[in-house]
Amino acid sequence: MNLILLDESDRTDAGFFRLTGRRRDHLDSVLRARPGDVCKAGFLNGLRGRARVLALDAEQAILETELDETPPRPLGLKLVVALPRPKTFRKVLGAATQLGIKEIWFIQTFKVDKSYWQTPFLESAALEHELRLGLEQSGDTVMPRVAFRRRFKPFAEDELPGIAAGTRLLLAHPGAGTPYAPSGVAECVTLLLGPEGGFTPYEADLLARLGAETIQLGARILRTEVALAALTARLKLLEG
Amino acid sequence: MNLILLDESDRTDAGFFRLTGRRRDHLDSVLRARPGDVCKAGFLNGLRGRARVLALDAEQAILETELDETPPRPLGLKLVVALPRPKTFRKVLGAATQLGIKEIWFIQTFKVDKSYWQTPFLESAALEHELRLGLEQSGDTVMPRVAFRRRFKPFAEDELPGIAAGTRLLLAHPGAGTPYAPSGVAECVTLLLGPEGGFTPYEADLLARLGAETIQLGARILRTEVALAALTARLKLLEG
Repeated sequence: MNLILLDESDRTDAGFFRLTGRRRDHLDSVLRARPGDVCKAGFLNGLRGRARVLALDAEQAILETELDETPPRPLGLKLVVALPRPKTFRKVLGAATQLGIKEIWFIQTFKVDKSYWQTPFLESAALEHELRLGLEQSGDTVMPRVAFRRRFKPFAEDELPGIAAGTRLLLAHPGAGTPYAPSGVAECVTLLLGPEGGFTPYEADLLARLGAETIQLGARILRTEVALAALTARLKLLEG
Repeated sequence: MNLILLDESDRTDAGFFRLTGRRRDHLDSVLRARPGDVCKAGFLNGLRGRARVLALDAEQAILETELDETPPRPLGLKLVVALPRPKTFRKVLGAATQLGIKEIWFIQTFKVDKSYWQTPFLESAALEHELRLGLEQSGDTVMPRVAFRRRFKPFAEDELPGIAAGTRLLLAHPGAGTPYAPSGVAECVTLLLGPEGGFTPYEADLLARLGAETIQLGARILRTEVALAALTARLKLLEG
């Protein structure tokens, strides 16, 4: 946790912040904070800065904040990714959040096992928890927006053109003659990332007809979360 | 598993390959292979190609191979990384192997918790298992070499100069004025990656005196395995 992420529900009547549970425990056991200590903090979707520990006991921590820094700039990259298996889903969400991606669509494709949609990690509380962990890790405050689309064709034909408007639409889809991913793309990118086993030729053709440029990243087959970090850092400067 | 990784101990008297345990189970339950089916296979540190399933029952699978392709070229990047906590260690090992890194040193630094050296994941059987998973994922056959060094200063002063000889020595160490990581470096790279909390100023100074160029990758703080994939893909073409 490189930033204690606070929100309105943490605020006390006196204008301080009161933490219980995971964040209190982290302050106590990992950061070994004591009254008077100062740590990094930020307000959800707002400013970052410092928090001073006013009190810390077995039940709660009381913090006073001084927040005067803007969070890192959102990365100019929107992610459209085939829903991975639950364990990988959490890793993809974490990596995307750490990298500064603020718009993520998880979609059904032919090779996405239907059972993946049943995981409790997709429920809003579990999802928000993962996103908060990513923000706390990266030192950001701005919550990504995550959407789920369970029908490929309506999403691709009706919604993707709007998402991709004004961006460079790139489809990670290895194959003979596919160009290597470009480096440091200045314009905003919409990145399409397939499932294990990739997009089907039908899906790739449909996406290409919608204007997607096919790119690849070498001969080795990377796990989704590794491919995401590698592609993102190749395509965009991670400045913030 | 995008490649069934075989080795000499799998070979039968008749010159076929006999798999039991995890790889048999994967062939059966995940790939749903049946006698006559062909899947991708490779020989440890050797050629890749195809394997035909001759027999498959509850106990074993018998494969006949046709291996005639060279594995992807090793990535021109050596990794020196502070030993992370056990869970992260496995992720770093997996990402490094998938990315094609073939030489990895895990080292002690001031901020590496001594307890991390106690994990069973560092033992050779567990280590080889993780590396094989990475090769099977990426479709490679060449086992990375992994070394552990528990004393920072002797490693840095006595061993690192030899490792880094003829390579560009880069130190991921964010700070004011630090240049952003260069893109597509043609020469071989030795990448130094710190622990959570980074190298100490003493360590960074020592590494700089040994010729390391300091680089960074934006304002957000990435987990080690995400930073590794992002830095590697920024620094090097992942061709194979």
